[in-house]
Amino acid sequence: MREIVAAPLTTGAFAPFGDVIEAAGAPDRLINQGRCGRWHDLARLDCDREARIGISVFESEVAELPLSLEMVERHPLGAQAFLPMTEHPFLVVVAPDSGGVPGDPLAFIAAPGQGVNYRAGTWHGVLTPLHAPGRFAVVDRIGDGANLEEHWFDTPWLIRPG
Amino acid sequence: MREIVAAPLTTGAFAPFGDVIEAAGAPDRLINQGRCGRWHDLARLDCDREARIGISVFESEVAELPLSLEMVERHPLGAQAFLPMTEHPFLVVVAPDSGGVPGDPLAFIAAPGQGVNYRAGTWHGVLTPLHAPGRFAVVDRIGDGANLEEHWFDTPWLIRPG
Repeated sequence: MREIVAAPLTTGAFAPFGDVIEAAGAPDRLINQGRCGRWHDLARLDCDREARIGISVFESEVAELPLSLEMVERHPLGAQAFLPMTEHPFLVVVAPDSGGVPGDPLAFIAAPGQGVNYRAGTWHGVLTPLHAPGRFAVVDRIGDGANLEEHWFDTPWLIRPG
Repeated sequence: MREIVAAPLTTGAFAPFGDVIEAAGAPDRLINQGRCGRWHDLARLDCDREARIGISVFESEVAELPLSLEMVERHPLGAQAFLPMTEHPFLVVVAPDSGGVPGDPLAFIAAPGQGVNYRAGTWHGVLTPLHAPGRFAVVDRIGDGANLEEHWFDTPWLIRPG
């Protein structure tokens, strides 16, 4: 079985796939009489004009590493952001596109305080919390249309902790 | 000093002001081979056509009850959702509009797992976490325009725990 080692999630490594949503460095603005920092506009929320952006809540069973990655999916019509409603790390899997199918996947561990936004059309693994409760606010496209493609690997990948 | 007792946050009590964002009751859909529940499209994200919706992160100093409420604010041009990135409760203050100024405020305590969305134009208190870290993902309108009104009370309100 082919193996992938999960690396810490960083803005630079994740840039080809989307945005890391976190309070990194100094805030862009101080508000509320200086009591609150705002890290401003951290995600590119692609969405076609026929649809709109909404907020949902996902609650998922947790997984443990190492795990077998059997499929990835993508949403061609809109971005999808996952914002943990806990301070637990979670697993983030993405893959570059290679002629309409995913290339070799990459795996990251999002640290407490980090969310992610997958750009429209980015191959990614399903939501994979590593600790209960696996609860996330999800900001994504709400609308009709064929917005889900799945790809099942002929041979699963094994994702190991780094 | 006039007093307000903070009540538990419920969808019904909060309905005139906006949406409670939480995994309440059965999920609307099961996804990911049944491993994940989706509570779908929980917030009305008002936003004018000249602007767009974005995701930011706020990190605020914490407060303790009882506290003195000196002002509320509102954003006439767009909704604003606060999604805690922790499992800590926070204080939610809203007020009905009364001829362009806030009427008597109401106070709620959001339980772990609850976020809120203030509809456009809803008077509300500033972000008030009750435990550190006071970190929230914020989904709101990104754009130009006069989108902030503040109202300072002649006499502050005292907000007490319920």
